[in-house]
Amino acid sequence: MVTKNEEENSFAKYKLLEKYAQFIDCNEDIKTSVEAEHTLSLPLSSALFTEHIDFDLSYFPLKHLGYKLIVATMMDILAINGTPTQMRVDLALSNRFAEEAIDELMSGIVFCCSKFKIALTGLDLKPSATGLIIAVSMLGEVAVEQKVGRSGARENELICVTGDLGSAYTGLILLEREKKVFQADPSQQPDFIGVDYLLERYLKPEPPVGALHNIKPTSMIHLKDGLAAGLIHLCNASKLGCTIFEEKLPIDILTFDKLKELNIVATTVALNGGEDHELLFTFKQEDYEKIKEIKEVSVIGYMTPETSGRYIVTNDNRQFELRAQGF
Amino acid sequence: MVTKNEEENSFAKYKLLEKYAQFIDCNEDIKTSVEAEHTLSLPLSSALFTEHIDFDLSYFPLKHLGYKLIVATMMDILAINGTPTQMRVDLALSNRFAEEAIDELMSGIVFCCSKFKIALTGLDLKPSATGLIIAVSMLGEVAVEQKVGRSGARENELICVTGDLGSAYTGLILLEREKKVFQADPSQQPDFIGVDYLLERYLKPEPPVGALHNIKPTSMIHLKDGLAAGLIHLCNASKLGCTIFEEKLPIDILTFDKLKELNIVATTVALNGGEDHELLFTFKQEDYEKIKEIKEVSVIGYMTPETSGRYIVTNDNRQFELRAQGF
Repeated sequence: MVTKNEEENSFAKYKLLEKYAQFIDCNEDIKTSVEAEHTLSLPLSSALFTEHIDFDLSYFPLKHLGYKLIVATMMDILAINGTPTQMRVDLALSNRFAEEAIDELMSGIVFCCSKFKIALTGLDLKPSATGLIIAVSMLGEVAVEQKVGRSGARENELICVTGDLGSAYTGLILLEREKKVFQADPSQQPDFIGVDYLLERYLKPEPPVGALHNIKPTSMIHLKDGLAAGLIHLCNASKLGCTIFEEKLPIDILTFDKLKELNIVATTVALNGGEDHELLFTFKQEDYEKIKEIKEVSVIGYMTPETSGRYIVTNDNRQFELRAQGF
Repeated sequence: MVTKNEEENSFAKYKLLEKYAQFIDCNEDIKTSVEAEHTLSLPLSSALFTEHIDFDLSYFPLKHLGYKLIVATMMDILAINGTPTQMRVDLALSNRFAEEAIDELMSGIVFCCSKFKIALTGLDLKPSATGLIIAVSMLGEVAVEQKVGRSGARENELICVTGDLGSAYTGLILLEREKKVFQADPSQQPDFIGVDYLLERYLKPEPPVGALHNIKPTSMIHLKDGLAAGLIHLCNASKLGCTIFEEKLPIDILTFDKLKELNIVATTVALNGGEDHELLFTFKQEDYEKIKEIKEVSVIGYMTPETSGRYIVTNDNRQFELRAQGF
């Protein structure tokens, strides 16, 4: 599913990000006067989406695209336990892009802002020499004592994930398959009977807003590049290992069946597919009773000492080291 | 200088921005709890820059590019009388982009952040199917009573501009000219003797930080698409007209001479060239003595009733209506 090139690209990406990490927050002593004087943190989130790389307009309805990109940007603020407050959008479009198409895109953006009470405070349009480019900038807020980072996990803490894994990526596989069928024979109608849920998970993901309102995780991350990448990020930041269990992974039955039909192992998609836009987090044992009551959350494993490594225990009781794209 | 296509594009842009303006700030009642509880405003600024459209890497040193894009994004925060506090950068690059080149770009970004005490709080890298794409997101802050909008100008108030006009665009003309010479005959060395100032104004503009520290303008805007566009924005927002004087335009003598050599009227470049990255503002008459003492500020005209229209009075005492790209 991931080409060699993409893998190399991802690898270079993480190596470079590590290199430039020295500059990030280098001016940590320069806080806004609000942050300095009050016990509030103002997280800034941003994301850049480009046609052909991040989305394919041949099957992505523009209204859903607008909605999804806002959700994807929100997730980074939710992942530090914050609330998004305002955002801006910068669009670059080619001359061929019809006004009705911009209307569709904007309607998805505006609907999402309104639904999650995010003030849309700016919009700019520019020409693009190639495809559609969308940049979203978002501000959030979180009380300092409520802020959650990636490095707060402790040994033996349980690992949880919201929602289910792999369904969005399965939706993407189906969309790509039907696109190829259509390209080969335009008289063929796409066969999407019974897979609405999978398509919707890819095309219009719902953010897990409020799911964790009465617990404060010890560490958390936005799951966008697959479970394995998310776990490795949390483990690296907290200097820990982890063990997760294949049988505990929240894989929807429809996802499982469809992937089986396609001869793809569902666990691989959950680990490395990406596109889930869910939260992966660890929490204190004292919160276990509260966690059990949240229906959209699954416990999938626990944190271990760093020297124990990062493993998944399969249903037939074998252990495999977790590897992720980009490491 | 502006092709027909660009003009049409600009026109469509402003028409569309006007159309979607109904959605901007639609949730104005949703403020961050900071804004609601304190007398502070948190302006979010963002900008998207794409290769071939916004910059040409054949003559734009990457370190300068990084610096300039941060300055350009800062200007929108300076234009509401705010101070930038933190920012994020999203880069999309093709595989052909060398790591040394990313280093160069990052060094300009980091230098600019450090110089203006802006915390760089995030960086992401993605692949790009075409050229380099850079998205900057920036947060600022300003006390509510110090915030300056576009709509606060009053009749008879004087109009000012920081820095000089047209020099950056002249630098761009020279760079484009030498590029064509080089393309036609690669053995030719570029002729940039004596025009360092013009090139620097385009390649590495300095933001007018602190220039207005002891006055509060009544209205202000970031001058990026030329003086005429800026004036028309302020006039529209304040529902006023304006009269400016050609002889008062701060056009540097080197700019004037170079443009004359090229058979281009300097006033046209000042009005419509763009790329100045200066502040255009109006102020209360009681601040006149203070304004006179700020050496980087020039008074260029005054605001009039809306019915009087928007005019420039030329050196030979003729009046021309101001027209801007994009209207």
